[in-house]
Amino acid sequence: MSNMTNCIVAQSGGPTVAINASLAGVIDGVKKSKTYNKIYGSIHGIQGVLRRQYIDLTDSSEDFITSLCATPAMYLGSCRYKLPPFKESPESYEDIFGVFKELSIGAFFYIGGNDSMDTAAKLAEYAKEIGSDIKIVGIPKTIDNDLIMTDHTPGFGSAAKYVATSIREIAYDTYIYDVLSVNIVEIMGRDAGWLTAASALARTESVPAPHLIYLPEVAFDKEQFIEDLKKLLPIHRNIVVAVSEGIKDKDGNYLSATDAAADKFGHAQLSGTGKALEYLVKEKLGIKVRSVEINVLQRCASHLASKTDIEESFKLGSHGVYFAENGKSGIMVAVNRLSSSPYKYEIVNVPVCEVANKAKAVPLDYINKDGNDVTQEMLEYLRPLVQGEVSIHYDNGLPEYLNLSHLTHME
Amino acid sequence: MSNMTNCIVAQSGGPTVAINASLAGVIDGVKKSKTYNKIYGSIHGIQGVLRRQYIDLTDSSEDFITSLCATPAMYLGSCRYKLPPFKESPESYEDIFGVFKELSIGAFFYIGGNDSMDTAAKLAEYAKEIGSDIKIVGIPKTIDNDLIMTDHTPGFGSAAKYVATSIREIAYDTYIYDVLSVNIVEIMGRDAGWLTAASALARTESVPAPHLIYLPEVAFDKEQFIEDLKKLLPIHRNIVVAVSEGIKDKDGNYLSATDAAADKFGHAQLSGTGKALEYLVKEKLGIKVRSVEINVLQRCASHLASKTDIEESFKLGSHGVYFAENGKSGIMVAVNRLSSSPYKYEIVNVPVCEVANKAKAVPLDYINKDGNDVTQEMLEYLRPLVQGEVSIHYDNGLPEYLNLSHLTHME
Repeated sequence: MSNMTNCIVAQSGGPTVAINASLAGVIDGVKKSKTYNKIYGSIHGIQGVLRRQYIDLTDSSEDFITSLCATPAMYLGSCRYKLPPFKESPESYEDIFGVFKELSIGAFFYIGGNDSMDTAAKLAEYAKEIGSDIKIVGIPKTIDNDLIMTDHTPGFGSAAKYVATSIREIAYDTYIYDVLSVNIVEIMGRDAGWLTAASALARTESVPAPHLIYLPEVAFDKEQFIEDLKKLLPIHRNIVVAVSEGIKDKDGNYLSATDAAADKFGHAQLSGTGKALEYLVKEKLGIKVRSVEINVLQRCASHLASKTDIEESFKLGSHGVYFAENGKSGIMVAVNRLSSSPYKYEIVNVPVCEVANKAKAVPLDYINKDGNDVTQEMLEYLRPLVQGEVSIHYDNGLPEYLNLSHLTHME
Repeated sequence: MSNMTNCIVAQSGGPTVAINASLAGVIDGVKKSKTYNKIYGSIHGIQGVLRRQYIDLTDSSEDFITSLCATPAMYLGSCRYKLPPFKESPESYEDIFGVFKELSIGAFFYIGGNDSMDTAAKLAEYAKEIGSDIKIVGIPKTIDNDLIMTDHTPGFGSAAKYVATSIREIAYDTYIYDVLSVNIVEIMGRDAGWLTAASALARTESVPAPHLIYLPEVAFDKEQFIEDLKKLLPIHRNIVVAVSEGIKDKDGNYLSATDAAADKFGHAQLSGTGKALEYLVKEKLGIKVRSVEINVLQRCASHLASKTDIEESFKLGSHGVYFAENGKSGIMVAVNRLSSSPYKYEIVNVPVCEVANKAKAVPLDYINKDGNDVTQEMLEYLRPLVQGEVSIHYDNGLPEYLNLSHLTHME
């Protein structure tokens, strides 16, 4: 017992419904570990270490771990803090490693996206510099699915399931009227179109919506868009368009920005990509048109999480502990897909410094020639990730999620 | 068998996730009836009768009826057609009753909202005029819950459950950051605030969101809104505001209209109530602010339907058949609540002409004195309506809904 060390875990970046499952996996991994004694949870990402705000998660019960897997967003809170380079602010690093020493920390687990992997890479490099034996492990998450060196990211499968389900339900909503209509659904993804592509899973034999899909990876042409609609309207009558918030024209300008409407105070306001296309269709075709922005619900709707995603996210967390126990540091836990049908994968580790600050766009062979749909390869890639439903505890008709008073009282 | 007649059912107005359960109830009622032989489904509301577009639903299987209860929007399609007054267009009435005669119709069931009840009332009056024995029965539905003479409307409970769940999930999304923020959620309801009020069910001990609720029944005051925020921000830090799309100032002007932004073509565009408040907060408080419009998903998300709502909607449909069999015409089927805890109700019938074209606002004793929250009475009224979860069949990770090819091929 005396030569055992403790560890600390934190969450960072934007919410997903799977990031708490990875936290649950880390806690579970530590509970089963012979290397680590206590597990602390840092509040609001790495900032919680700097501020000495953390809670002890060591005695988490099985019930708590199960509820954690079914609770959206970050149980430990988040931050948008990017650790400054060592040369600019050596005192931040000294401070962090000072707290690590105080708490007898042997491993630090950072669950997050691009920026969090940057922080993990910097901490690992610093540890090497000073000859510290503390293991630094990154655990990925992002609904955008844009991290490199992993087949996909935790949180993406659930967001994909929510987007595809919503598109299917919106399509049923539009199909009931006997009038021509265009229904534009704006989906998150500033730079990568993975989540918008997932809308393609919504299609059924009788309701093949979305009829058009536009990703940021292909330059968006307004005239071609109107032509695409003119071609499909006589056939399908109620057209559903899935569009990424991040689509840009050939000069790289965001649609939302070019169509910015001025608010009453005279400020330029982003009208939103969906709204911009709605106005365009109204102007050019003069038919019934609506735009829907799915907004934050795609990243926080735990009631519709993908079981595959939640289970994988848990495993990635517990494998993080396993890798640290086995001497790995400066790594990110990652998924290596072995086959899509049947779905098989292995959990590996990759150098976190190679992941940080890079983004994985949708490859062009996953997008059709006309740039308005995805290919069969994309569907095969996506399908395993949305499989399975989670069991949610309902109380008085609403999903019951974990109490967050440790966050609200910490402020 | 020879003196048995047939009947016909249609759906009209905006979608809900419960309107197909009422259709299922009508079909089930007819299958068990000794009065009615065949049951036809008119496509696109009463227009299907005028156009002679209908399908035969008599041989619906139990499986089909179960799937119908779990499929959003209108299986038979909808219309926004309001039957002109008899004096203006007697030929429409003659035409409809001509088709009724051709098909040996003994009863017509119209599932819809305000406008549909107007059509039902007119048809019942015409039947009386011409001495026809055809029974005309209205079956209510609307997510707005604004029909009079019924405790509540089918579709409302499910929409309320969706709204409250979404607000809870959005609140979890906002609570993770250690910065002051205002999060405005715009909920449907142009004239009545029932659905926005349902957001109050989202509150938990540690996450008491929504912190502020604004309904169209109370004049909205922008300055008071900013004062309300200033008071709550130091206490709760991440404020969630539930606001009805239909809030108006003391002069009766919609917020959305007064804050209309001009689009790039120079047209006045409704910026949306949520957006209008977002800009207002940004201007007056300069803190992080976001607005989310829940949009059509609150009326089509079958995967999150209220079991209580779906079961009641079914019963209202089958009771419609029962009332018609027992000689009732010119009626609407309605819910009379007997008690809230335990929840008990009876199904009654009310004169449809008294329901048509009227709207039920939220009573003022369901709204707090400051006009920014609901009272305990409202919570007691709402709670029973969102209870219970439906069982949805998932195929390949997505909810599977009924095939709509009969609609798409009918066009």
